[in-house]
Amino acid sequence: MAQYVYEFAEGNRDMADLLGGKGANLAEMTRMGLPVPPGFTVTTEACRAFLATGTEPNGLADEIAAHLVTLERSAGRSLGQPDDPLLLSVRSGARFSMPGMMETILDIGLTDDSVRGLAKTSGSERFAWDSYRRLIQMFGSTVMGVDPALFEAAISHLKESRGAPDDLHLDATDLTRLVETYKNLIRRDTGEDFPQDPAEQLRRSIRAVFASWNGQRARLYRQREHIPDTLGTAVTVQRMVFGNLGTDSGSGVAFTRDPATGRRSPYGDYLTNAQGEDVVAGIRNTVPLTDLERLDPASYSQLGHHLRTLENHYRDLCDVEFTIERGTLWLLQTRVGKRTAEAAFAIAAELADEGLITADEALARVSGDDVAGLMFPRFDTAAVGDAFVRGIPASPGAAVGAAVFDCAEAVRRAAAGEKVVLVRQETTPDDLPGMVACQAVLTSRGGKTSHAAVVARGMGKVCVCGAEELVVDPGERRCTAGGVTIEEGMVISVDGSTGTVYAGAAPLVDSAVMRYFETGERSGALVDAVAEAMQQADAVRSLGVRANADTPEDAARARRFGAEGIGLCRTEHMFLGDRRQLVEAMILARTDSDRVRALDALLPLQRQDFVGILEAMDGLPVTIRLLDPPLHEFLPDRTELAVRLAAAEAHGNPPSAHDAELLVAVNRMHEENPMLGLRGVRLGLVAPGLIAMQVRAVAEAVVERKRAGGDPRAEIMVPLIDTVEELRLVREEVERTLTDVSEASGVTVECPVGTMIELPRAALTAGRIAQEAEFFSFGTNDLTQTTWGFSRDDVEAAFFSAYLDKGIFKVSPFETIDREGVGRLVRIAVAEGRAAHPGLKIGVCGEHGGDPESVHFFHTAGLDYVSCSPFRVPVARLEAGRAALDGTEVSDSR
Amino acid sequence: MAQYVYEFAEGNRDMADLLGGKGANLAEMTRMGLPVPPGFTVTTEACRAFLATGTEPNGLADEIAAHLVTLERSAGRSLGQPDDPLLLSVRSGARFSMPGMMETILDIGLTDDSVRGLAKTSGSERFAWDSYRRLIQMFGSTVMGVDPALFEAAISHLKESRGAPDDLHLDATDLTRLVETYKNLIRRDTGEDFPQDPAEQLRRSIRAVFASWNGQRARLYRQREHIPDTLGTAVTVQRMVFGNLGTDSGSGVAFTRDPATGRRSPYGDYLTNAQGEDVVAGIRNTVPLTDLERLDPASYSQLGHHLRTLENHYRDLCDVEFTIERGTLWLLQTRVGKRTAEAAFAIAAELADEGLITADEALARVSGDDVAGLMFPRFDTAAVGDAFVRGIPASPGAAVGAAVFDCAEAVRRAAAGEKVVLVRQETTPDDLPGMVACQAVLTSRGGKTSHAAVVARGMGKVCVCGAEELVVDPGERRCTAGGVTIEEGMVISVDGSTGTVYAGAAPLVDSAVMRYFETGERSGALVDAVAEAMQQADAVRSLGVRANADTPEDAARARRFGAEGIGLCRTEHMFLGDRRQLVEAMILARTDSDRVRALDALLPLQRQDFVGILEAMDGLPVTIRLLDPPLHEFLPDRTELAVRLAAAEAHGNPPSAHDAELLVAVNRMHEENPMLGLRGVRLGLVAPGLIAMQVRAVAEAVVERKRAGGDPRAEIMVPLIDTVEELRLVREEVERTLTDVSEASGVTVECPVGTMIELPRAALTAGRIAQEAEFFSFGTNDLTQTTWGFSRDDVEAAFFSAYLDKGIFKVSPFETIDREGVGRLVRIAVAEGRAAHPGLKIGVCGEHGGDPESVHFFHTAGLDYVSCSPFRVPVARLEAGRAALDGTEVSDSR
Repeated sequence: MAQYVYEFAEGNRDMADLLGGKGANLAEMTRMGLPVPPGFTVTTEACRAFLATGTEPNGLADEIAAHLVTLERSAGRSLGQPDDPLLLSVRSGARFSMPGMMETILDIGLTDDSVRGLAKTSGSERFAWDSYRRLIQMFGSTVMGVDPALFEAAISHLKESRGAPDDLHLDATDLTRLVETYKNLIRRDTGEDFPQDPAEQLRRSIRAVFASWNGQRARLYRQREHIPDTLGTAVTVQRMVFGNLGTDSGSGVAFTRDPATGRRSPYGDYLTNAQGEDVVAGIRNTVPLTDLERLDPASYSQLGHHLRTLENHYRDLCDVEFTIERGTLWLLQTRVGKRTAEAAFAIAAELADEGLITADEALARVSGDDVAGLMFPRFDTAAVGDAFVRGIPASPGAAVGAAVFDCAEAVRRAAAGEKVVLVRQETTPDDLPGMVACQAVLTSRGGKTSHAAVVARGMGKVCVCGAEELVVDPGERRCTAGGVTIEEGMVISVDGSTGTVYAGAAPLVDSAVMRYFETGERSGALVDAVAEAMQQADAVRSLGVRANADTPEDAARARRFGAEGIGLCRTEHMFLGDRRQLVEAMILARTDSDRVRALDALLPLQRQDFVGILEAMDGLPVTIRLLDPPLHEFLPDRTELAVRLAAAEAHGNPPSAHDAELLVAVNRMHEENPMLGLRGVRLGLVAPGLIAMQVRAVAEAVVERKRAGGDPRAEIMVPLIDTVEELRLVREEVERTLTDVSEASGVTVECPVGTMIELPRAALTAGRIAQEAEFFSFGTNDLTQTTWGFSRDDVEAAFFSAYLDKGIFKVSPFETIDREGVGRLVRIAVAEGRAAHPGLKIGVCGEHGGDPESVHFFHTAGLDYVSCSPFRVPVARLEAGRAALDGTEVSDSR
Repeated sequence: MAQYVYEFAEGNRDMADLLGGKGANLAEMTRMGLPVPPGFTVTTEACRAFLATGTEPNGLADEIAAHLVTLERSAGRSLGQPDDPLLLSVRSGARFSMPGMMETILDIGLTDDSVRGLAKTSGSERFAWDSYRRLIQMFGSTVMGVDPALFEAAISHLKESRGAPDDLHLDATDLTRLVETYKNLIRRDTGEDFPQDPAEQLRRSIRAVFASWNGQRARLYRQREHIPDTLGTAVTVQRMVFGNLGTDSGSGVAFTRDPATGRRSPYGDYLTNAQGEDVVAGIRNTVPLTDLERLDPASYSQLGHHLRTLENHYRDLCDVEFTIERGTLWLLQTRVGKRTAEAAFAIAAELADEGLITADEALARVSGDDVAGLMFPRFDTAAVGDAFVRGIPASPGAAVGAAVFDCAEAVRRAAAGEKVVLVRQETTPDDLPGMVACQAVLTSRGGKTSHAAVVARGMGKVCVCGAEELVVDPGERRCTAGGVTIEEGMVISVDGSTGTVYAGAAPLVDSAVMRYFETGERSGALVDAVAEAMQQADAVRSLGVRANADTPEDAARARRFGAEGIGLCRTEHMFLGDRRQLVEAMILARTDSDRVRALDALLPLQRQDFVGILEAMDGLPVTIRLLDPPLHEFLPDRTELAVRLAAAEAHGNPPSAHDAELLVAVNRMHEENPMLGLRGVRLGLVAPGLIAMQVRAVAEAVVERKRAGGDPRAEIMVPLIDTVEELRLVREEVERTLTDVSEASGVTVECPVGTMIELPRAALTAGRIAQEAEFFSFGTNDLTQTTWGFSRDDVEAAFFSAYLDKGIFKVSPFETIDREGVGRLVRIAVAEGRAAHPGLKIGVCGEHGGDPESVHFFHTAGLDYVSCSPFRVPVARLEAGRAALDGTEVSDSR
């Protein structure tokens, strides 16, 4: 038979699945000899059994009874013993932290009898009756199902009638009366008396904590945080200790290091004469932990000692909850603490310096998201006042702009050149134009998967969402929080990395980390810590990192950021601007000679582009993708053109001949689904001369760079391949052109020819395609679009947030690669491509190349490199390093 | 060492890979004891070796020499023997028939000496010199590379100077002079004499036939017919026999049955005093084979006997080429003969009746394409004159319309209600509007993979292409063939099933086969034969056949055609017509109650649709797909709306408020790629009430049918599923609604819930999806679109014909399923779906369900049923039967 109950001393930190995080760490501390009030933990297995059958599993009651006896024996008194009651707390504790989502019941064991015993032993009538009243209130609502508002109303009524400003002003007599009121209330509401049997209190409390796993709040939270519903919670039963027994008592929270900066100094909050709950509730102002040195030097010293013990044991930042009961220090909880990105780097570096962890472990403790966060400029918080409001940091960066409260106003002001922040209760697809127009989005509702958050991240806009204190009034064009009102047009500052919003224009501070990547300048400990992590990552990673760059400037930046080449150089950007009219001429050409003339005019311009990029990446590979988008993208919008011509006609003006010609071409080339149309290699195979012109431009650029003494390493990449036959035909044309240029110039030009794998069919027939390819590059944007059958542009705003909310996605498949679907195609293509062509070089150049979770996948899938935007290169380097460490997950312990 | 040469008696009919079709069948006839002039075959392997190295493989010359000796010994004279020369023919013969694409050289062995011997033994100076002149002409052009036009010029010049209307009017003296002229011509052109060594003639002729495999015509033909370039040709060397030695000689072609009707009567053509070449060239008019009975009763009787022997041996229709040399009958070639669809059925049925083949074999001898062809009405050819022109039958059916020569005229006339036939040299994507507007397309260039053919088939339009005799003059707006000119507006009749075009309006004859399927009426032997084949197919097939039908009428027709249920009932058609404004109201609804009102109005209308369909399919499954297309498809076109509003504004008219409201909605809902947008299950999950309304309509229809005593078997199918979570959510809503209706009506409604598998991700995660699905139905149209990343509507016209021409496709993947890519996903989904959910029912409802080749694939892939349009149901039944026969390919022996 399963063991359902563990004494603290029986467990350890690795048993969180069974004992929950809280239970496992209490067990660990007990084993370490730290001062933990004794207790035991009922396992998640017992909870699961209870939830499955609706009743406690066989044997559980006996086990609990046996452990209670042990507890009573060690305490020298029994649960609810009338003259000197042992009191217990019953708390939930799941595998993953679900703060405040499940139930807690304190002071179990108090009855009409034992409350008097407690009064005597504690020496405080008020304390005893207040504890009893709390038990009845918690038990009544949690276990017996009485509406908590009824208790609140009763205590409010009492305070009013007694003229008491707060609970502390109610005396023992008041509380005695309140207990009576509460008990009557329960009887009236449930037809049942508050139980006077301490064992019944305990049994029913444990049962209530089990049941709270399936409470609405908890279910909603798990759905949002993607915690499986099947885990269940453990229940910790522990002897009560009291921090509210006078000025020699108190409660607090302490960190082994400052979780904001990582600085190694005592850090935390303390509240004299209070329980832990009071610290969290913020009823009175806490004092800094350092004040405890003055208030209770012995406890302070002990606490410091325990914190060092914990950090040495856990080899990481820990936080603890502690209580001092009449001069005796008790530790009630510990865990590896959450921290900011800055602290993550600082702590990892310091622990490594101290020899507590290895360089690999230090690398595992930081993440790509941390680096990314540190590369943004931040607000100079010293120069601004308090936050106006706080919300969920949903899309990083810092932005300043005038507050606007609807989409139309956002568009109007942005068109006039003003920077705006769109403030909404929540956004819908209708807000899309406003989101495009603004610098940042601020909402009062919704989490990281809300419409605002998803769309803003997709656009790279700053976003803070779910600022619950914010009251948005679009009718009055204003919003309010904490008594401050922002009217339309007033400037606010939004920090999407921290979730903080300031009134007014907060000054920006450049990122020292960004400066380091740009210039190599080492300014301070944080930058040193980042540099060390990057070095370690580079030392251990097997995955190469390249950048997607289309200009010499981007190429140069990418190189400074550590890119080992260009994985994707898009030629279509070279067809825009002034050159658009040449492209237009090529498209409209009626004769071959017209077409040739237009292509000839484009050739030298493209050549110069390539010369610049090859120079910036001298000695490193530059993968140039042949023109991908449909040609009609270079022509004006069809509806606009039609409206312009119709309007001219209606006004009796002669329509522009050029417009008319364009409209004919646009109508002819119109596609209902351009994403699925004449683009990529298809275009190259039907538009005569287009491939040859581009390849000639590349080849002549190589010649020019070679003549200048450079080491140009151009590679030609063919987009949108479906079949090996397409690639074979293009390859023949490429090789013919390279030969032509080589012969004409006398300089040998050889460029590897490879292909994008961005359509399911290419992945499914990769074995055949590999026979004609010198490299593969996964275009995971298009591969995601076709595998799922939706286009990012069309659907992200339309239904992604609904899908995230409903749990259909855990994360947008455009942010993080979908391992089951798209990832399976990647694995098929890698395996079959390599089998057919040993040594085939394989990379990825979709946006996933810069996403931490996806980088880990690509490492596991055996790719040679990832390619991402220049700014994501450090992220990719770091995560490629972490992926190479055995068993490191993307967000370890965070 | 390989054996490169086979005596006829050494081979047999199964050796076509090595001996070519001709060589293998000559061998078979020799072994059967039929009168075949002796000879031997040089293998395709020798040809491949020659083509690879440019020289004859070692040993070939010796083998040929040895076989020549045998031949000479049996003939009692030697090759080119001066006094009585043995003459040989050298002919190509590949695995697959390539008529006229490679070289033939006759009369090998004639020299300046032996021509005189031949004159003496044949008793005809003219015959001998004409034979010699033919040899020099064929050898000169084929082997020595002289331009054939030079020989033609010389003979024309001679005829002119002699006043001879044709070759027959040249006498022996003329031909002796012509031989001299020819020899001089060769000497002048090549610097070499026509070889007087018969062995050299033979060696060089064989070499020339080898080389002709890679001639331009042959290469082009193979590309068009998808015959691999690697096969090579065999070469048959055979003793010459002569049908041109007087009135007791002649040549002809004979069939064991009439290849047009299948009637069992002697059928063929005969030409007295002629070689086989003359029959084919049509220099003189042939007589019907039956005339031979009068001309040469002995040979006629022998021939009849041989034909019966051949048919009994081959157990199929055979055709032969024969020559009678001075009263002696020789068979020169045989093969299983080509036949019309009608003949295919008739012959198969008769051979089975005769016990020559089994019912299974009879089934294997006919095809779905045959049935499909017989279901179209045809022109009453008896009522019209001769064909105006013939081309390649590219898309079946019969159409009549006014000839037009450009796209604009086609559109103009069609808009005025006229039926038109678009006549072009060839079509391009620019002709698309004209192709949409016309009844049929006729082109003078291009084959079955030309743009016209591909697009017309995609649209289901009649098409004849590659009518090479047709001269199209779009400038003059007319076309000419065989001296007849069709001016713009003149009516022509196009038969896309036979490739024949008639001037004027040919009367149409209904199809008896169609009448049989519609009514069960058995009118004649053809219908009986079709009915027998269908019965056999139904008896042996394991694949079920359902229909795609959206109306009670279609459902009833499908049932008459043999459908065993509806595999796809599209609800979107139920949202059109009068109901469009209700759908519009639902889309434009500003409040929940407006939306509910619109949905409530749609409900009874949909319910009645379902009642009708369930009644028509009573007792059989009806799979109803929830609404699939994006909602904006029910709103007006965006550009049209914008132009209308702009025009109104420019004219100073107040814009229509409704139009303005519509434009806002259309703009809001606009998608760049609607195929990849908010449609299918996505729509159901974000548009409140839409799924419930549809399911309620189905459920209430089931209740109504049950109350009426019917046996309704509705199934609910969810479109565009990507993940199991989507299906789970919809399923919950469906089941809730079914329960509601069951409870409200007191009638239990249970509908299996299944899903389309039409996105790569669904196929890749089919194992998980199967856990929530009671059936799968492959939507191979969408699956092809997303797997390949192109939309049929957008690309078929733009580049499919180019892709087919370049050999990238063998056939459009929308016509026949792409086994490598899409087919692999189908296999994955079947295997993993069934593994997760044993007994999962799996079908296909894309258009591939009615394509013969694809039906075979679905059978092999283990599907339970295919579903196709009602008119393709007989095709699918027949091919499902053929697929169940071991080793039957789609087009066996055709």
